[in-house]
Amino acid sequence: MQGYRQPVLVSSTDGVGTKLILANVMDRHEGIGHDIVNHCVNDIFTTGARPLFFLDYIASAKLQLQQLKSVVKGMADACRQVNCALIGGETAEMPGMYARNEYDVVGFVVGVVEKSRVITGEAISPGDLIIGLASSGLHTNGYSLARRVLGQTRQKLDVYYPEIGMTLSEALLEPHRCYYPLIEPYLEIIKGMAHITGGGLPGNVVRVLPEGLCARFDTSSWQSPPIFRLIQHKGNINENEMYRVFNMGIGMVAFVHPKNAPQLLSAVPGAKVIGEVSRGNTTMQVVLD
Amino acid sequence: MQGYRQPVLVSSTDGVGTKLILANVMDRHEGIGHDIVNHCVNDIFTTGARPLFFLDYIASAKLQLQQLKSVVKGMADACRQVNCALIGGETAEMPGMYARNEYDVVGFVVGVVEKSRVITGEAISPGDLIIGLASSGLHTNGYSLARRVLGQTRQKLDVYYPEIGMTLSEALLEPHRCYYPLIEPYLEIIKGMAHITGGGLPGNVVRVLPEGLCARFDTSSWQSPPIFRLIQHKGNINENEMYRVFNMGIGMVAFVHPKNAPQLLSAVPGAKVIGEVSRGNTTMQVVLD
Repeated sequence: MQGYRQPVLVSSTDGVGTKLILANVMDRHEGIGHDIVNHCVNDIFTTGARPLFFLDYIASAKLQLQQLKSVVKGMADACRQVNCALIGGETAEMPGMYARNEYDVVGFVVGVVEKSRVITGEAISPGDLIIGLASSGLHTNGYSLARRVLGQTRQKLDVYYPEIGMTLSEALLEPHRCYYPLIEPYLEIIKGMAHITGGGLPGNVVRVLPEGLCARFDTSSWQSPPIFRLIQHKGNINENEMYRVFNMGIGMVAFVHPKNAPQLLSAVPGAKVIGEVSRGNTTMQVVLD
Repeated sequence: MQGYRQPVLVSSTDGVGTKLILANVMDRHEGIGHDIVNHCVNDIFTTGARPLFFLDYIASAKLQLQQLKSVVKGMADACRQVNCALIGGETAEMPGMYARNEYDVVGFVVGVVEKSRVITGEAISPGDLIIGLASSGLHTNGYSLARRVLGQTRQKLDVYYPEIGMTLSEALLEPHRCYYPLIEPYLEIIKGMAHITGGGLPGNVVRVLPEGLCARFDTSSWQSPPIFRLIQHKGNINENEMYRVFNMGIGMVAFVHPKNAPQLLSAVPGAKVIGEVSRGNTTMQVVLD
């Protein structure tokens, strides 16, 4: 591992969940390739790791070449954008195991970080600011609820909603944003990161917070994109559940000392201070105000 | 990477295919955990790599805790046997994407090998012997054909066949054998290895043979286990197809100089000389006599 004194390998695997069902209904698959790569890369990036290589597994009852090509093209493009080698993968055709026309995509990524630079969250302390990085939509979480509320027929997905300024399918299939290229130059000032996936802000931030500390978010400090409000309104879903299921517009959070916040805020479009760390005085480690 | 001067990472991903359908019918899942780990470990071991860590992805329409526990127990045991860390994984519940009661398991392994010791097959030369290592059954390939020929109901799988000395399900669910612990001490004398998976001997050996050489196998030098003969007989399948679909009793082959063959043969139970390398005089790189 050239350039590393004590290289630590970091790895993650994930799927993109039932977003695939919508991609299938719309026959739009390239974004799924971006989704799976970016989801995996963001996951390992929370430790400060640079992605090295990626592998994929694509399976269905009957593989369809055009679908496959689109997904792989998306993966290749997404890998290229972060200098990650797409070194291989496996396709499997398994009649009887998958529902008709459905396929599953699994991604695996391996990255590396210098041992002395692993970001663990340990250094987070009271007074640190929490910087929220805008998501590009639902990313890859909350699709079961979204589909239940909004429907999943082509007819429904084709509807244009003025409040979101696009059709439902456009909003729902927007690829998962990758934070690596944006944030990588600022790793030295970052004490902790959390990728906001299933479980939302409360479920993911708690993993990086040292014991005895509390992360308090001011939810009025950013505006959730209208797609989330549309889902909430149509499904009559309470605020708490929304924040537990969806990223609500924040795809990644970074913990920094207040003196370092301006640097990150000015460099990353859409970055905002959305919360602060305090001593924990309750059993709740994450509070949404 | 302690102990390595120029560590090369080697990685592979795979599933276990429709063997899962049989595991499901019989409600026996632990072996699937062994299958997926051993398949992946064998794959990277062909380069001489020692497994470092393994991740898994398990998905279904509705996850069943007992199934999941059995699979994970099998994976953990198999990882332990090769000193590989089972560092994590992902489970996904996706109603509508998977057929009722079916699940898919995907494995991902990363290993390491010293750059100067990577086994590529380049050193293989005329006169080298091909040593075959016995498989433990079908491993994870050929199950679609086997199921078509033998059936896949519990009733059929429960039948005891005197010629195989066990029930069909016992023969078909026998876990994929791992060659790493057996062969690892002899890596220095091995010039090339091929893991006999989909494509059988012809499909896999061709990948490791340098151009201009021919691998000639004497198929009378080993006896295919009776399960293969049962499938062939019941399905009226010709010999060529059998060797292309199944491993036919050989799960891994190793290429060695004749002077080194005795060492491997005496150390590994069930190892046999099954072929020889010659200069290629036809377009066929792999010949089954």
